[in-house]
Amino acid sequence: MPPFRYVQRVRFADVDHAGIVYYPRFFHYFHVAFEELFGQDGAYMKILDQRKVAFPAVHVECDFVRPLRYGDDMTVEVSLDRIGAKSVTLAYLVTPVGADAPCARAKVTCATIDMTTFRAIPVPDDLRALFRSLA
Amino acid sequence: MPPFRYVQRVRFADVDHAGIVYYPRFFHYFHVAFEELFGQDGAYMKILDQRKVAFPAVHVECDFVRPLRYGDDMTVEVSLDRIGAKSVTLAYLVTPVGADAPCARAKVTCATIDMTTFRAIPVPDDLRALFRSLA
Amino acid sequence: MPPFRYVQRVRFADVDHAGIVYYPRFFHYFHVAFEELFGQDGAYMKILDQRKVAFPAVHVECDFVRPLRYGDDMTVEVSLDRIGAKSVTLAYLVTPVGADAPCARAKVTCATIDMTTFRAIPVPDDLRALFRSLA
Amino acid sequence: MPPFRYVQRVRFADVDHAGIVYYPRFFHYFHVAFEELFGQDGAYMKILDQRKVAFPAVHVECDFVRPLRYGDDMTVEVSLDRIGAKSVTLAYLVTPVGADAPCARAKVTCATIDMTTFRAIPVPDDLRALFRSLA
Repeated sequence: MPPFRYVQRVRFADVDHAGIVYYPRFFHYFHVAFEELFGQDGAYMKILDQRKVAFPAVHVECDFVRPLRYGDDMTVEVSLDRIGAKSVTLAYLVTPVGADAPCARAKVTCATIDMTTFRAIPVPDDLRALFRSLA
Repeated sequence: MPPFRYVQRVRFADVDHAGIVYYPRFFHYFHVAFEELFGQDGAYMKILDQRKVAFPAVHVECDFVRPLRYGDDMTVEVSLDRIGAKSVTLAYLVTPVGADAPCARAKVTCATIDMTTFRAIPVPDDLRALFRSLA
Repeated sequence: MPPFRYVQRVRFADVDHAGIVYYPRFFHYFHVAFEELFGQDGAYMKILDQRKVAFPAVHVECDFVRPLRYGDDMTVEVSLDRIGAKSVTLAYLVTPVGADAPCARAKVTCATIDMTTFRAIPVPDDLRALFRSLA
Repeated sequence: MPPFRYVQRVRFADVDHAGIVYYPRFFHYFHVAFEELFGQDGAYMKILDQRKVAFPAVHVECDFVRPLRYGDDMTVEVSLDRIGAKSVTLAYLVTPVGADAPCARAKVTCATIDMTTFRAIPVPDDLRALFRSLA
């Protein structure tokens, strides 16, 4: 099955004085793609608010291969790297639209927690299925 | 020699709907401490604007050990992990003020580049000395 | 002629701990719509970088009528309020998709300046025509 | 009584490609000063979380008089403009440290609401006293 893809546009405010995307913004791009994974109409927030399940990042690794600039659109691909009992590691690949090589690649491990206790909980079955569909 | 330390305050806008700091913000905290390393009065920007030297991140690794919340102040410690010919790896340790254990630890590798060509250049001697003072 | 319209999605990071969009983000939404006005492929940045024309905001007025939440998409409509010799005032109307009333309305006056001197300059003819097309 | 003053530093990420502070960031600076008004240790968040009182902005007016740049520290002064039954209007004056004229001045009107119903409520007495101390 193909990874999930979500196209985003570099915004003026994303670009720093050196003329390239301020690197912390990449993690925001990853998060936006992560939110979109769950579907439309605020589905991500409903998991937080109604099911009290949250996904705090516990480990991040990222390589920035080449700069990303204003005027670029980029595709963020999300695929499954590894799923554990109480965490999931997703891989992110950022490629400018029209380019043949990525500008950034990352792995982000999130725990699944109960927001009321902040304790780790098993990845809920429906979300486990969603993440597995990205393998 | 001691690492460089810079205290920052968690802002309302840093905290997400789960009540903890949105993880991409940590990289902003690291960058703020990095800017402060160079000294006062916009010294960091002068390196960019007048010397045309920039420090794009090329690799990042980060562990988030425990959540950081609104109302926390945190100390960001910056120390030298490794210095190469054309890059430097700095280690960041984030500890809430009054806590005895860090909430996040990271390593960020930056290339040194000529901003006009975006080519890697040797770490300038004065900056090499600055980074070495953090060992 | 119709105003310019640009649809944006509320992001998790836009929402504050009260569960609504952090109000400074609205000005970012306005700016994103403003950037899009100029067209694709980084056209806005080219005006800055190649023509050295910039549009610093000099006056802003905004009414927030009702809250905007995560999961909302919104249409930002941009229309011309007034064009002067060396400035332009654009009106922004933010309406959640599917709603029949706006959640925010604003006027933003920008000067046109020469970025090398930061002095006001007459609105260039092609940009004046672009802004007039929004009347 | 004097207005409340809070010093902030312009960060690299605050500055846009034109070399000046991206104007939406000013509203963030205002909000940071607003948070500080309430005191230390997350006092602002406690009002939201424990008392369920929030202060959504309903009207904003701002004049940007001159640009603010990286390397500048600024003082944000907060004073009372007007207090109503269920709202408060605070005036903000931003002055670079060492300058004798402000770079921005604004008025921000916030409603006081019950966060559980999003209905306007009378300004609580202790907060009314706090705002009045800024007159």
